[in-house]
Amino acid sequence: MKLILKKKPKGARIIEGFPGFGLIGTIATEFLMDHLETEKIGIVEMDEIPAMIAIHQNKVIEPISLHYNKKYNLVLIHAINIGKDLGWKVAEAISEIATQLNAKEIISLEGVGSPTAEGGRVFYYSTKGTAPKSLEGLANPLMEGIIVGVTGALLAKHVKTPIIALFAEARSNMPDSKAAAQIIKALDAYTGLKMDTKPLLDQAVVFEKKLKGLVEKGQKAQQVQEDKHLSYVG
Amino acid sequence: MKLILKKKPKGARIIEGFPGFGLIGTIATEFLMDHLETEKIGIVEMDEIPAMIAIHQNKVIEPISLHYNKKYNLVLIHAINIGKDLGWKVAEAISEIATQLNAKEIISLEGVGSPTAEGGRVFYYSTKGTAPKSLEGLANPLMEGIIVGVTGALLAKHVKTPIIALFAEARSNMPDSKAAAQIIKALDAYTGLKMDTKPLLDQAVVFEKKLKGLVEKGQKAQQVQEDKHLSYVG
Amino acid sequence: MKLILKKKPKGARIIEGFPGFGLIGTIATEFLMDHLETEKIGIVEMDEIPAMIAIHQNKVIEPISLHYNKKYNLVLIHAINIGKDLGWKVAEAISEIATQLNAKEIISLEGVGSPTAEGGRVFYYSTKGTAPKSLEGLANPLMEGIIVGVTGALLAKHVKTPIIALFAEARSNMPDSKAAAQIIKALDAYTGLKMDTKPLLDQAVVFEKKLKGLVEKGQKAQQVQEDKHLSYVG
Amino acid sequence: MKLILKKKPKGARIIEGFPGFGLIGTIATEFLMDHLETEKIGIVEMDEIPAMIAIHQNKVIEPISLHYNKKYNLVLIHAINIGKDLGWKVAEAISEIATQLNAKEIISLEGVGSPTAEGGRVFYYSTKGTAPKSLEGLANPLMEGIIVGVTGALLAKHVKTPIIALFAEARSNMPDSKAAAQIIKALDAYTGLKMDTKPLLDQAVVFEKKLKGLVEKGQKAQQVQEDKHLSYVG
Amino acid sequence: MKLILKKKPKGARIIEGFPGFGLIGTIATEFLMDHLETEKIGIVEMDEIPAMIAIHQNKVIEPISLHYNKKYNLVLIHAINIGKDLGWKVAEAISEIATQLNAKEIISLEGVGSPTAEGGRVFYYSTKGTAPKSLEGLANPLMEGIIVGVTGALLAKHVKTPIIALFAEARSNMPDSKAAAQIIKALDAYTGLKMDTKPLLDQAVVFEKKLKGLVEKGQKAQQVQEDKHLSYVG
Repeated sequence: MKLILKKKPKGARIIEGFPGFGLIGTIATEFLMDHLETEKIGIVEMDEIPAMIAIHQNKVIEPISLHYNKKYNLVLIHAINIGKDLGWKVAEAISEIATQLNAKEIISLEGVGSPTAEGGRVFYYSTKGTAPKSLEGLANPLMEGIIVGVTGALLAKHVKTPIIALFAEARSNMPDSKAAAQIIKALDAYTGLKMDTKPLLDQAVVFEKKLKGLVEKGQKAQQVQEDKHLSYVG
Repeated sequence: MKLILKKKPKGARIIEGFPGFGLIGTIATEFLMDHLETEKIGIVEMDEIPAMIAIHQNKVIEPISLHYNKKYNLVLIHAINIGKDLGWKVAEAISEIATQLNAKEIISLEGVGSPTAEGGRVFYYSTKGTAPKSLEGLANPLMEGIIVGVTGALLAKHVKTPIIALFAEARSNMPDSKAAAQIIKALDAYTGLKMDTKPLLDQAVVFEKKLKGLVEKGQKAQQVQEDKHLSYVG
Repeated sequence: MKLILKKKPKGARIIEGFPGFGLIGTIATEFLMDHLETEKIGIVEMDEIPAMIAIHQNKVIEPISLHYNKKYNLVLIHAINIGKDLGWKVAEAISEIATQLNAKEIISLEGVGSPTAEGGRVFYYSTKGTAPKSLEGLANPLMEGIIVGVTGALLAKHVKTPIIALFAEARSNMPDSKAAAQIIKALDAYTGLKMDTKPLLDQAVVFEKKLKGLVEKGQKAQQVQEDKHLSYVG
Repeated sequence: MKLILKKKPKGARIIEGFPGFGLIGTIATEFLMDHLETEKIGIVEMDEIPAMIAIHQNKVIEPISLHYNKKYNLVLIHAINIGKDLGWKVAEAISEIATQLNAKEIISLEGVGSPTAEGGRVFYYSTKGTAPKSLEGLANPLMEGIIVGVTGALLAKHVKTPIIALFAEARSNMPDSKAAAQIIKALDAYTGLKMDTKPLLDQAVVFEKKLKGLVEKGQKAQQVQEDKHLSYVG
Repeated sequence: MKLILKKKPKGARIIEGFPGFGLIGTIATEFLMDHLETEKIGIVEMDEIPAMIAIHQNKVIEPISLHYNKKYNLVLIHAINIGKDLGWKVAEAISEIATQLNAKEIISLEGVGSPTAEGGRVFYYSTKGTAPKSLEGLANPLMEGIIVGVTGALLAKHVKTPIIALFAEARSNMPDSKAAAQIIKALDAYTGLKMDTKPLLDQAVVFEKKLKGLVEKGQKAQQVQEDKHLSYVG
C-alpha cells in the first residue's frame, strides 16, 4: 500500500463511503463529489485492487483517490472498485491518512438492512461515546447490527482518530438513493455543510441511473479483461 | 496478529469458547457475557479473520475481544466469526494472552458429538493430569475423541499454562443450548462462580433464538459483501 | 520482475499496446512491428507470465520484448500473452523503462467499447492536460469511460513520464482491425511517422486472420501444457 | 515447522509410517504403538497440518508425535492427519529428527499396489545398497514402482541417515491389515524386535475396524469444522 | 530450489527433454538413458514439484536427476513429473547447472504440433544464429511456432550458454515415439553420438507401452495420494 499525498490539510474531517449495503456509501460520496468544490490531493495505490480506472469529465479517477474541500475542511475518500476482502487493508490506509492529516474525525457513510419495507431511518455509532446534539431527531444510536467491510474494519481497529459512522437503512441491497439522501441530510446536520438538501430526493433517481450505468460498464470491462486471458495469444 | 491489552489482570483464568460442534463454545461464552459483569480489556487483531464487527447494545464487538470479570478474576475470550483454518493462529494468540497475564489456567468450552440421541453428558481433559474433585459426578474424563479447531490446536501446542477442556455432548451440529447449559453447570462447579444455574434451561431457548438470528444476519451481511464485488463498479 | 536492456536510447517515445478490448493494442503493435524497421533492445522477465514464447520468422519473441526504431526514436513494447491480473506489475515495468530511457512520452494504444454499431472513432487522454493540435479532427478527448488492464494501471500510477492514451472505439470484443487502423492513423498524425496509411484497411483483414491463427495456436499450446500435467508421469 | 524434543535418545532407529496406499504405514504404526511400551518424547508442530488432535485413552495425540521404546532403542513417528501436499516438509522434519538423535537408521513403512489379487508380499529398498540378510525369504528388493508422499520425499532428498523402506503389497487402497501384518513380520525380522507375531492376523480385523471408526469420526469432525464457517456468525 | 552435484564435468553438453507435446522430450530422454552408459551425478530439489519418486531397476529416480555420460561428455536431465507452471523455475535450474558445469551447450528436445497428418519432420532453433551443417537434410529452422514450458522459458531467459532446441513434429498430443525417433536421429547427427539408430523405430512401440504403463501407475499413485487426504484420519 502506498499513500501519495500532494497536500496535507491539517485537522480536516475525513469522509469515507465505500460500496456496501444499498450502495449507500458510494451514492453519498458521489453526491458530495458533485456538490462540493473539491481538489484531488492524493491517491492510495494498492496492488490487490483490480487495475481499473474511470475517466469522468475527461479526468482520471483512480481506484482510491482523496479530494479536498477547503471551505469545510473536508477530505473525501473516493473509491471505484476495491474488490473483495480488502476491508482491513483499506481501513489501515484510512487510519494512516487520518494520522498524516492529524484529522479531526473520520465520518463513515454506510448502509444497514431494514427490518421493515419502509426503511429510511438513519443510525449512528460514535467512538466518542457521546450523543451528538446535531443528530437529534435525525438519527438514533445503532443498538444492534453486523457491519462488514471497510467501516467494520475501521471500527474494529481502534483507530486513534475519533470515528462517527452513519448508517442509512436501505430497503434492499439494490442501489437505494432514497436512503442515501437521508444519510446526506444527517451528514449535513452533523457537519454544518449547509447544503441545499431539497433537490436531493429528485436527484436520487438520476444518481441511481448513473450508478446502474457504471455498474454495467464496469461489469463489461471486467468481463473483457477476463475473456482476454482465455482468448488471446499473439 | 496483534494483541492489544488495556489491562493485564495477573493470575486470571482465561475462558475460551469458539464456534464448534453444536455451537457449545459460543453459546456458553455468550451466556457468561450476559450473566457476569465484565469490562472489555483488549482485542486481538488478525488480518485473516473476515472484516466484520457486531454492534450489540450500541457497543462495538470486535472479531476477537477480551473481557475481564474482576470478582472471579476471569478473562473471557469472545469471538464473532473467525472464519476457517485459523485454529493454529488463534491458539497461538491465546497462548500469548496467557503468558502476558501470567494466567492461572485456560478453560476451553467445546462440543463433542454424542453416540446416543440423548446427549447431555459433560467430559473433560486436563493437562495437569489430575482429576478435579469439583467435577465429580458432573463430568467424566474424555477417553476417546477427535478435537478440531482452536481447542484442538491449544491441546496440540504444549502451551505452558495449564489447560482444562470441558466438552459438552451435543446431539447434532445445530446450536444445542441444552448441552451448553450442562457445560455451564460443570464450569460453575469447577470455578466456583456460584452462578444461579436454575434459569439456564429456560434461557436456553432464548439463546438459541438469538443465535439463530445472528446467524441469519451474519449470513446476509456476508452475502451482501460478496455480492458487492460482483455487482458494483462506480 | 527483471528488466534487461541492451541499449538505452535516450529521450525515446515508448509505445505500448497490450491485449485489450477489440485487441486494438495488439493489432496496432503488430502493425507497427511489421511496418517499422526495429531492433530488439531488451526484454522484461516476469515469473507470473505464462512460460511461453513465439518463434516468428525464425526469431524468438519473448513474452514481453522491447524494440527500437531509430528513425523516429520509438521504443515499441511487444507482448505475447501476459496472462491475468498483471496490470499493476506491467505498468510498474513500463514506468521503470521510461525512467531508464529518460523517455519523452508513453503512448498507450487501447480499445473502448462503442455505444453504436458503427464504432471507428478515436479518443485520447493526455496527462499533460493540453489538447494536441495534431489530433484535431482525428480524435476527441475521452470524456467518460472505464479503463482496465495495463493502460488503466499506467494512468492510475502517477508515472512521471507524460502519457497519452489513444482509444479506438471497437464494435465488439472480437479482434477489430478496422478500429485498429483508425488508431494507427491517429498515432501517425500525432507522432509524425508519415507512414503510408492507405493500405491499412486492406491489410486489416490479413492481420485479423493472422491474429486468429495465433489465438488458436496459443490456446492449443496452453491446452497441451495443462493436459500434460494430468496425463503424464514417467 | 517446530520440532520439540523432551528427550534425545542417541543412535535410535526411527520408524515412520504415514497414511498411504492401503493405509499400511498407519496400521503398522498403530500396531507398534499398541504392542511396544513407549514414552512420548516430542512433537512436530506444523501450521500447514489441519488443527486436529485425537484423544485416546484420555491422552492427547498430537498431529505428529514421537514415541520412544527404550528396550529396542526405537523412535516411532505417529501421525494423525497430515493433510495434502506436505511430503517434502514432513520428510524435512524426519531428516531433522534423525540428525538431532544421531539416528542409526530410518525405517519407512509404506504400501504399494499389487498387480495380482492376492497381494501379501513385502518388498524393500535400502539406501545402503546391500541386501539385509535378515529379510531373506521375507522380502524382496523393490525393482519397479512409483512412491508418493513422505516416503517418496525421504528417498528423493538424499538424507544422510541410512534409510530402509519396507513396502507391503496391498490389494486395494482400502485399509489392508493383512498386508500390514506382513510388513510387521518383515520389520520384526529386520529389527529383532522378537514380537509375538502370531496374533497379528487375528488382530488385523480389530485394527481395521478401529481405523474405520477413526476415519468416520475424523470425517465428521472435519465436516463440522467446514460447516461452522458457513453457518455461524454470532 | 537446491542443486546438488556430486561431480561437475566441465564443458559438457546438457540435454534436457521435459514432458511436452507428444511427450517427445520424455521419450527421447528415456531412450538416451537406456542406450547410453550413465552415472547419476546430481539432483535438483524443488518443493513445488509433487513429492513422488520412481524406483526403476531397484534404483531411486528422483523428480529431477542429472546423469553423466563420460564418452560423449553429456549431461542428461531426467524428470519424472514436474507438475504445472514450473517452466520458469526449471529453466532457472538448468541455467544454473550450465553455469556450474561451464557447459558447452544446452540441447532441448521438444515437440511441436504438425499441420498435416504425417508429421515426422524435425525443426531446430539455435541461439548461435548459424545453421549447423550436421543437421542439413535432417532438420530445418523453425520459422513459426509457439513454445511453452521449460524449453519456452529457456529460450525466453537469455541464458548465457548457447542453446539449440530440436523440435519433432508430433501428430497429436498422445505419446508419439515415431516423432521421438526422428529427433534422436537429428540429435545423433548433431552430436556425433554414432548411436545405432536402426532399431529405433522398432523400439518405438516398446517405449510407447512403457510410457503408457508409467502414466497409469503415476495417475493411480496421485489418485491414492489425493484420496488419502479425504478418507483418512487415525
